[in-house]
Parts: sequence; C-alpha cells; structure tokens
Amino acid sequence: MLARIIQPMQVNEISEFDLIEKFSYVIQCSQAQILGKKDELGFKLKISVGDDAAMWEAPKGNRVLTTDTMVEKVHFELPQIGWKNLGWKALAVNLSDVAAMACKPLYSVVTLGLRGNLPVDGLIEMYEGMIELCTKYGGTIVGGNIVRSPVFFVSIAVVGTSSSLNHPLNRHSAKPGEKIAVTGNIGCSAGGLRITQETPQEKSRLDKDTFDHLYSAHNTPIPRIIEGITLSENGATSAIDISDGLTDDLMKLCISSGVSGNIYSNQIPVDDFLKSAFPDSWLHFALSGGEDYELLFTGPTEAIEKMEQLIDVPISVIGEIVEGIPNVTVLDSNSKSIPIDTKGGWDHFK
Amino acid sequence: MLARIIQPMQVNEISEFDLIEKFSYVIQCSQAQILGKKDELGFKLKISVGDDAAMWEAPKGNRVLTTDTMVEKVHFELPQIGWKNLGWKALAVNLSDVAAMACKPLYSVVTLGLRGNLPVDGLIEMYEGMIELCTKYGGTIVGGNIVRSPVFFVSIAVVGTSSSLNHPLNRHSAKPGEKIAVTGNIGCSAGGLRITQETPQEKSRLDKDTFDHLYSAHNTPIPRIIEGITLSENGATSAIDISDGLTDDLMKLCISSGVSGNIYSNQIPVDDFLKSAFPDSWLHFALSGGEDYELLFTGPTEAIEKMEQLIDVPISVIGEIVEGIPNVTVLDSNSKSIPIDTKGGWDHFK
Repeated sequence: MLARIIQPMQVNEISEFDLIEKFSYVIQCSQAQILGKKDELGFKLKISVGDDAAMWEAPKGNRVLTTDTMVEKVHFELPQIGWKNLGWKALAVNLSDVAAMACKPLYSVVTLGLRGNLPVDGLIEMYEGMIELCTKYGGTIVGGNIVRSPVFFVSIAVVGTSSSLNHPLNRHSAKPGEKIAVTGNIGCSAGGLRITQETPQEKSRLDKDTFDHLYSAHNTPIPRIIEGITLSENGATSAIDISDGLTDDLMKLCISSGVSGNIYSNQIPVDDFLKSAFPDSWLHFALSGGEDYELLFTGPTEAIEKMEQLIDVPISVIGEIVEGIPNVTVLDSNSKSIPIDTKGGWDHFK
Repeated sequence: MLARIIQPMQVNEISEFDLIEKFSYVIQCSQAQILGKKDELGFKLKISVGDDAAMWEAPKGNRVLTTDTMVEKVHFELPQIGWKNLGWKALAVNLSDVAAMACKPLYSVVTLGLRGNLPVDGLIEMYEGMIELCTKYGGTIVGGNIVRSPVFFVSIAVVGTSSSLNHPLNRHSAKPGEKIAVTGNIGCSAGGLRITQETPQEKSRLDKDTFDHLYSAHNTPIPRIIEGITLSENGATSAIDISDGLTDDLMKLCISSGVSGNIYSNQIPVDDFLKSAFPDSWLHFALSGGEDYELLFTGPTEAIEKMEQLIDVPISVIGEIVEGIPNVTVLDSNSKSIPIDTKGGWDHFK
C-alpha cells in the first residue's frame, strides 16, 4: 500500500489539459525575459505555448510556428485512410493551425518514424498527398528527417506568415456580447470515422455520395487558410480550429479568454449527409466528434455579417460569449441545457 | 514465389540514404517554381531538402528550419540517459543542425509521443533539461503538442536565424585543395554509449573522471553555435555536424559537393579519456561512432589558421578535399588506406 502511495503520478492519471498546463508553466517561467520584448534582430515573441501556434513579430509581419503529429493506430489506420490521404491529412491538420492564426503556410519539415516493413511506394504516395495539399493551399516541404521506430508516425512542423502585423487571431480575446460562429459544417468528420469502422452490412445503408462525403470529411480535411485571413481582416476577435470537438475547442477558447460560451444546438450547421447516415447521433458527432478542422471564432454581429459576404464557405452563428467562469452550455430549441461530456472535453491519456 | 516477386519494396530493404533520395526527388520536383525565387513577402528558399536544415532568405537575414527526433529504445534508454539529459540532448541535436548552418536558435516546438505509464515529474524534468540548454545556447520553446503513442518519442523543430545574408554554411560548396577540419574531439560519444551498456565489472576499469567525461559526451552534447557562426564569418566553405559518424558525414558532404575526401587517422583529435577506456577501439569510435555533434567543415588553410585564434574549442585539420568521384579515404601514418564500413556509412533500416 505504501508503494502505491509514493508512486509518482503517471501520464495516464492526468488529463491532457492538466499535463499541458504543467509543461506550459515550466516553459513560461523561463520566458519572462523574452515574451513581448523585441530582440536585437527585431523579433518579438507575441504568443508562446497555449494557442494553435506560436507567433512572433518579425521586421515585416507576423510569423507562426506549429507542429502536429499522427501516430498509426492512434490517429489513423493505414488500410482505412490510404497513403495519399495520410500525407494530405498529416499536413492539413498543421495548416489548419496556421489558418486559425490568420496566417498562410510557408515552409514545412516532415519527420517520419518508420517501421521496417512499410512499403517505400506507399511513403512516396504519402509525400504526393502532402504536395497536392501544398499546391492547393500553399507552402512547401523543405526538409525533415527519418528515424527508425517500432510505431509508424508522421510529425510535421510548419512556419507560416501574415503579410501584416495587424489582426492576429488568438484564443484569448473573445469578449462577452460577441457572437460565436463556425465555418462550414460540423460533425461529418466523426461520421466519416464511424463509417470506416462499420461492417459491410452496416455500410450498405449509405449511398455512394453520402459515403464519399463523410469519408472525405474525415480523411482529407480542408485547411481554412483564406477564410482565416479574411476573418482576421474583418473583425474576428478570436479563433481556434476544431480538432478536438466543438464544445472542447470552445471550452479552450473560453478558458483562454476568461469568458463563458452558450451555443444553440439548432444553429449548429450539420449537413443532410450526416443527418441521414446517423439520424440518432449526428448532434453528438457535431458537439464532440472533433477533427472537423473548421474555424470556430468570435466577433461582433455586424463583423460576422460582413464576413458572410466575403467568404465562399458558409458561416453560421451558433451562440454567444457571456460573462462568467469559463464554461460551455449547449441549449436545445426549448432553451433546455443539453448535457455534454463531463470530462470537460479533454482527451485523457487513460 | 510469384508473391515474393511482386512484393513492393519495404523500408528495411533500402538504405536510409536511398530512401531520403527518393523522398527528396518527389519534393524537389514540386519546387522548381519556388527554389531561389523571391516571393511576394520577400522570402527566398535557398536550401531545401538535403542539408542540416532548410534555409531561406528573409528581408533581414537568413532563416533556417530543422527537425530531429529521438525514439525510446532506438535513440535512448531512459534509465541510462535520465530525464534531464534526455531533454537536453533532444534539443541539442537540433541546435547542432542550426549551428552547422551558421545560425543561432530562435524558436522551438516540442512534440511528445507519450505512453500512458510515463511519470509526469520525469517529463517536467525533461523540459527543465531543454530550458537549461536554451539558457546556455539560446532560443526558447514556444509550443508543441502531445499525442498518445505506444512508443515514447520526442520530436523537436527549431527555427534559427543569422543576422546577415552572408556566409551561409552548407554541404555543397567544398572544393578540391581545401582542408577538412573538425571542432573538438571525436569518438567520445560512442565511448559514452558503450560504457552505459557495459556490466558493472567491465565498468570498474574506469575512474570517475573518465566515466563522467564519456557519459557527458554521449548524453549532453554541446551544440557548436558560436563556433558555427565564427567559422562562417571567417572563410569556412562548407559544414555538417557529426551525427552519423565522421566518415559518414564527410561522405554526405562529399556527395553534396561532388568531391572526394582524404583524412589521416593520426590527425583525428581523440582525447586520452577515450584512448584509455578503449585502447583497441577508439579509432573505430572516432571514425564511425557518431553523435559527436562537433562541426566537420572545409576551408582554405589560412582561413582555418585564423579560426583557431578566434574559437575556444580546439580545431584540428584532419585531411583535405580532392577531386574525384565522391568517396572518403582514411589513411594511417604509413599512408596505407584503412578500410571503413562498406555500408558506406549509411544507417540501414534493416
């Protein structure tokens, strides 16, 4: 019993949020002399740990640096996703973080942890998927490294830029009275994950268009690069990309901003493909499915109305920021609160 | 038998060098429009895949981006290295790449692949090791991400800068007639790895100073930041950091530069700690041990003589660049060729 008491805390006994908080504290303590101060080269670190990406002011505009990783059997299964889509997605999730900072991607480095029995042709196809994404959404791969690993993983880091010093999008500037809005439709990615796990018999209820739509939402997400820049130039006050789920990511934004968020379930944009495929669970997928890689942002009503005119992707107002201890409340059409995951959305390591 | 013939090539059937070549080809084909041309923000990609780091010209100086990864049981064993040293080394190997490009580190992002049973306190100590390195050699950690993984890994990406557009250090500019030189002593890191694998009885031959010296060389390598900048400002024509081994890394430099290299075994700087601990294998460790993280560079004799005055770390001329099909020849004191690893130094995935 004594041994149990003195056992040090393990990663699987703590939430991801608390773990990040602990690491961030150690890092931030070391940065008091640096943050917000210009160095001799004219660089000023503006946002460090705790946002979609780190951001610094360079002599001619903001720069961001972000990283994200996909581990086999944790974040993807090779037969389901396929090599080209894996390349696309591994880079797209990084570009989505760049988008959420209102920047465009510039240079990426790719780290591969490779087990020996992976096919070389598959890996080349994976790079082709990354390059296709770069061709469509900007940036280029400039290097990386490969290491031997018993588990296959793809870790990418991306440098992005804005062309001006104005309007960075961060998580900590949402204010009470502002609206909460999202780009695109929510929940399809979770639906796409679910269908790839279904039996052929279960899948048979889906027509090809529905299957393809949900599959693409999960496996080839679109980074909202142009949209992020347009939002920032037209009055968005804060933004985060939806990777862990709508309520989770809104909670992170609320904690960073010291505010609370109310969202209305009947205003959440969910398309008919998802509703028809999952008539009972589409709302759950939309609220906490994750990996949508749409932008969740805040701003005044008139600013959001203007954005709607400027952006091709639909924008939906889904709620508003209110004063209070950081929290997220989801209300149904009768203004009754819908219970959301009590784990507060944080992805536990348990 | 037929199944065997049509089996696609696997990662473990190809050398690391060939694998990187294949990936680089795909990437470079996509970059013809970008490389060496200034974009609308004033960025010009100068060095992409195939050097210690990618480098681009920004409006006020060169920037580099590099990444390196350490995987548990492939690159480190936790009981041997300890948490703080792991943090130090995981970042130091990246800073060494920045040094080999004659830049200084600016911002780093840290990706952790975590298995659930890792101790939280250990991970915090690991960050403290990284921060200690930053305090001594520059740069700061600005973010990252943590993912669940069955195998523990630490992947870091670093942005670095030079304060001028002059004198970048790359791998492709060595010329026949130039000398080959290294900073510091070579081989101790391999010795340090070997002693941690020895039995207590084997270890007992070593005094504490010898053990500590070799252990540090392997577990807390020093990135040669100031040295890299000084070399570049004083006439070094090319450089690479020694990570895979002296002959391996020289071979890479020779291939990039289209030249050949002769080195003299009796001019390779090996200290007495290593010689006394490994009287029979110190030369092998020095030639192909790797992980020294010293700088291997080329330049005219008079430039190297000047550098010796300016740099605290000893500099040793170990050979010269000659014309010819890229190759590395090691000559003993009787000018007889010493056979080096026929795998050409490349770390196979087999």
